[in-house]
Amino acid sequence: MTTIIGVDAIDLRFPTSLSLDGSDAMNKDGDYSAAYVVITTDDPHLSGFGFTFTIGRGNDVCTLAALRRGEPLIGMDLREVIGDLGGIYRYLKSDSQMRWLGPEKGVEHLAMAAVMNAVWDLAARAAGKPLWRLLVDMSPEELVEVADLTYLSDVLTRDEAVALLSELEATRANRIATLTDTGYPCYTTSAGWLGYSDDKLRRLCQEAVDAGYKHIKLKVGANRADDIRRLSIARDVIGYDANLMIDANQVWDVPEAIEWVRALAQFQPLWIEEPTSPDDILGHAAVRKAVAPIGVATGEHGMNRVLFKQMFQAEAIDFCQLDSARLASVNEILAVYLMAKKFGVPVCPHAGGVGLCELVQHLSIFDYVAVSGSLDGRVTEYVDHLHEHFVEPCVVRNGAYVLPTAAGYSAEIYSSTIDEFAFPNGSYWSGRSHAVAHSASVSS
Amino acid sequence: MTTIIGVDAIDLRFPTSLSLDGSDAMNKDGDYSAAYVVITTDDPHLSGFGFTFTIGRGNDVCTLAALRRGEPLIGMDLREVIGDLGGIYRYLKSDSQMRWLGPEKGVEHLAMAAVMNAVWDLAARAAGKPLWRLLVDMSPEELVEVADLTYLSDVLTRDEAVALLSELEATRANRIATLTDTGYPCYTTSAGWLGYSDDKLRRLCQEAVDAGYKHIKLKVGANRADDIRRLSIARDVIGYDANLMIDANQVWDVPEAIEWVRALAQFQPLWIEEPTSPDDILGHAAVRKAVAPIGVATGEHGMNRVLFKQMFQAEAIDFCQLDSARLASVNEILAVYLMAKKFGVPVCPHAGGVGLCELVQHLSIFDYVAVSGSLDGRVTEYVDHLHEHFVEPCVVRNGAYVLPTAAGYSAEIYSSTIDEFAFPNGSYWSGRSHAVAHSASVSS
Repeated sequence: MTTIIGVDAIDLRFPTSLSLDGSDAMNKDGDYSAAYVVITTDDPHLSGFGFTFTIGRGNDVCTLAALRRGEPLIGMDLREVIGDLGGIYRYLKSDSQMRWLGPEKGVEHLAMAAVMNAVWDLAARAAGKPLWRLLVDMSPEELVEVADLTYLSDVLTRDEAVALLSELEATRANRIATLTDTGYPCYTTSAGWLGYSDDKLRRLCQEAVDAGYKHIKLKVGANRADDIRRLSIARDVIGYDANLMIDANQVWDVPEAIEWVRALAQFQPLWIEEPTSPDDILGHAAVRKAVAPIGVATGEHGMNRVLFKQMFQAEAIDFCQLDSARLASVNEILAVYLMAKKFGVPVCPHAGGVGLCELVQHLSIFDYVAVSGSLDGRVTEYVDHLHEHFVEPCVVRNGAYVLPTAAGYSAEIYSSTIDEFAFPNGSYWSGRSHAVAHSASVSS
Repeated sequence: MTTIIGVDAIDLRFPTSLSLDGSDAMNKDGDYSAAYVVITTDDPHLSGFGFTFTIGRGNDVCTLAALRRGEPLIGMDLREVIGDLGGIYRYLKSDSQMRWLGPEKGVEHLAMAAVMNAVWDLAARAAGKPLWRLLVDMSPEELVEVADLTYLSDVLTRDEAVALLSELEATRANRIATLTDTGYPCYTTSAGWLGYSDDKLRRLCQEAVDAGYKHIKLKVGANRADDIRRLSIARDVIGYDANLMIDANQVWDVPEAIEWVRALAQFQPLWIEEPTSPDDILGHAAVRKAVAPIGVATGEHGMNRVLFKQMFQAEAIDFCQLDSARLASVNEILAVYLMAKKFGVPVCPHAGGVGLCELVQHLSIFDYVAVSGSLDGRVTEYVDHLHEHFVEPCVVRNGAYVLPTAAGYSAEIYSSTIDEFAFPNGSYWSGRSHAVAHSASVSS
């Protein structure tokens, strides 16, 4: 018998604000961060690793929440936890006192994501499989058993979900073979951060084309004249055969979004991402109607499956950009993939940040193999930042994620990284004025 | 010059789970709690008090978040803070790193509520007025300046908001005189907690009628036969001239909600409250259509103004039950009141918990005097718990809140209460096994 003996949560922060990596119209100076969870067992060779992603201040709050969310695991038999991945999710979720703080949104939900990501990593490591393989080896009934379908029965029943998955079960091996050859297609956001100069933008667009990317995304929304100039540069470099996407990071009200996107329509963007509040289902539906044929994409701040259900019901989005560290791990993400399949909306997961690329590659592969069975309109985000901190970093070749082979969810971070970037006492932060500014002293 | 010299945040928890006060189908054993914020100045006679309400575990997370949200106030000139109550709200809200954790929902938003509630309390104390009076003494332009109208311009522009408030400006004094005579009508939930026996239910219903209440609310949703029996008892006592409301606390999916409420229709409830996920705008709209003429009410978990905007747009609710400690204080609540006025939906604020009655009395009075100008269909929740911990507790007479007269937002809690119920080191909790169960030791 193997027992879970510890749950640690660690506040990790990387000083990305210094280089303006990740800068956009809403998030001008993020310090990419992770509330990183380590589940240890009394088997010294078996631990689980997971995290949620944040952009700096408040990561201490998420870390504390993750610790509290994970505490009930301590002392449990490993088989109880990874032998019933639906049951353990429902058990952790059933804390009605913590539920009050959401429900199922914000810090507490990010904390559930961090802990359950670590549980899924642990399960995949114990099985000796990469997460995507663990999932595609499950039957439709087993997958639906772990999926969180609560509050969804008006659009998707358990039986419908099983039927959707059963359609593709017999042909899973074919699609695994396809992806083994080609990888899963991705696009790059690395070129288009708002804080980059025109010269750097031009150079990075060219590098992206040279690296085989067929989709490039630029940040917009701070200044309309700047947007027009930057989109001109991008189209000048990539031409009109490649796809150009634009991302406003929620800076507009609905009427402003419509007007601004129309002014950029000449550049034929494939989608406008996060045109307004991520909570505004009816607002996204209104924008979508007004800016067609430009698509509407959102989801990185999509708080839970109930939000996505309504985005589908209201025909508000053309692309679903679920986030692997904001939704409550595979259990809830499965439900969103199933609904997306039913409503015919392609899922193009949000990635970047710290480690999100490592996670989403597994999800996209699983989606193609077992749920959607299609690559049409699907492309997963890739951002070339901070992969050096991961023990098994994702690999991208010729604009596609290479299938990961190591056991787990690719979530383990080097201990040397923790020593350096733990906040505020890691070697990078201790003594830095940056750190002091982030933790002003208070009288309590 | 007066300077803010401290922001404290205190984790207060009351052992209400022992008596099943507050028990419902979703929240079976809450320990009513507050993340309590105290803003101190270098004037020993001037402090501000505020809080957000939770039901136990996780209150430590909210307390830490509130501390972090409040830190930027330290060292500021009092006039900068209370002289520009819109500006200070926008300043605290502008932290884009913390924004990532919501945005504007969950723990971080509860923390904004706690801090800004304390800022409003401070402003009212500095002005020597109860909060409702501070608000009704502001011009339409001043009120709209402090209201958070971001993401709302598709339904309410600044000019429309000013016009709505201007309609009633000249007659405010008449309505103050009316409420001074009658108080603001309230209803009681104290009778109907799910954990109470039939005998206790019958006795409490009779006491409520005797005390002058014309509205009584019962919890439902755990067991249909129990609901039918309990509603029979309630109608037997209060008759059909009084109003009976029912509250399911989010336990149903949409189809189940419709079926269950129809099975209780014989008891002619005025409203069904929280029939399903509080995030499910389209779900509430579907329930509302299906169960009419029974009204649909929700809002205590309504996460922000963008959610309420859509509830109004989708014609999803008959009663708006905004929460004074979940929305980001007066700034955001004002926006919801203004939209409710435009869409003709009565606001009946959620209360109970710890101190919510103390807060909402001010809001309801302000609404009647300055925004809606009407009492039709309006009744504010009242629950008779935990008022003894407040320095200026609300007073209810003959089923109505008596207008508060003390300066502030009625939010100050006795220091003796803090000594007793601070968690986990207050005199009540220290050494109790209850406390140990709530803070299991972890390996970090």
